[in-house]
Amino acid sequence: MSSSPLLADLVEALRCLPGVGAKTAQRMAFHVLERDRAGARRLAERLAAAVERIGNCTRCRTFSEEPLCALCASSTRERSLLCVVETPVDQLAIEQATGYRGQYFVLLGRISPLDGLGPKELGLDLLAQRLAEGEVQELIVATNPTVEGEATAHMLAQLARAAGVRASRLAHGVPLGGELEFIDRGTLAHAFGGRQVL
Amino acid sequence: MSSSPLLADLVEALRCLPGVGAKTAQRMAFHVLERDRAGARRLAERLAAAVERIGNCTRCRTFSEEPLCALCASSTRERSLLCVVETPVDQLAIEQATGYRGQYFVLLGRISPLDGLGPKELGLDLLAQRLAEGEVQELIVATNPTVEGEATAHMLAQLARAAGVRASRLAHGVPLGGELEFIDRGTLAHAFGGRQVL
Repeated sequence: MSSSPLLADLVEALRCLPGVGAKTAQRMAFHVLERDRAGARRLAERLAAAVERIGNCTRCRTFSEEPLCALCASSTRERSLLCVVETPVDQLAIEQATGYRGQYFVLLGRISPLDGLGPKELGLDLLAQRLAEGEVQELIVATNPTVEGEATAHMLAQLARAAGVRASRLAHGVPLGGELEFIDRGTLAHAFGGRQVL
Repeated sequence: MSSSPLLADLVEALRCLPGVGAKTAQRMAFHVLERDRAGARRLAERLAAAVERIGNCTRCRTFSEEPLCALCASSTRERSLLCVVETPVDQLAIEQATGYRGQYFVLLGRISPLDGLGPKELGLDLLAQRLAEGEVQELIVATNPTVEGEATAHMLAQLARAAGVRASRLAHGVPLGGELEFIDRGTLAHAFGGRQVL
């Protein structure tokens, strides 16, 4: 495609990024070579450092370069609340959107036998151990409202029940700013069934 | 934004890529850490190699890791045709779309005094020298049809005239598949003025 094999290699490698196809990869490669070699050098270093040094927190499994992530190590987060999410991105979304001050547990996936993801891969043994410690009063289940997320939520609820911990689930309903006309039936039925006193 | 400083650094560094904002950078960082560390490692290596080793061809100024790019070194490309483009991306577009078998000269920019881009920065001395060699019969001016591109084209035409070389410019007109109704006035006027016998 180009007169430079190194350039062709770079374009091919850029496609590991999500949402980046052949055309975009090409534009990115030319852009950094033409205008931002310093930025590209920095990106190369940080990518290598991140891949090399970012592992998972031993307590909550989120991304962390330390054995214990900053959030788990923090003394100001409530230890009685534990929110279970599928991925670090979900954790970040909750951190940014809500005033939640408890702790997290990151499954790094959802129950999906076809992908080989079972209780073991999701670290449910680690979670059961955590619940058995007795500090957690409420397990907030924030898996995605998909079929697999619901199956995971079901399993988490069982786990909580076995440990005598209260489990809760994020509310389903009409999203803010949404219009009833355009909301899917399942969500609307949920919102209707879960209506609250004004 | 996150519990991991290395992760925050990576997200920030990803923003050097064109079209990548804060949200996209975050999604990319999480994606490679979760699913494609091998791809990220490869990308880091190739970025570093490209930035380190890709320079410019000494003859046509396109990206090349060799002193002479593959296209300039090729014995099968016609030496009587020289196509001048603004960037390596434009060169690639012409290579992919047309059956052009001549050579190229890449300006790496366009005349733009405000950005400090003058004849010297665009390598016009190198181009004049190339024209003086006497091999080139036709200079195909393929700068973009923007104000700056047209100013550059004008300067290139003068250069060709001084060297006694014929200069040509890509045809303006209605793009294939376009509808007259939606084409801008300037293009339509050009296409009308340049109408050809059926």
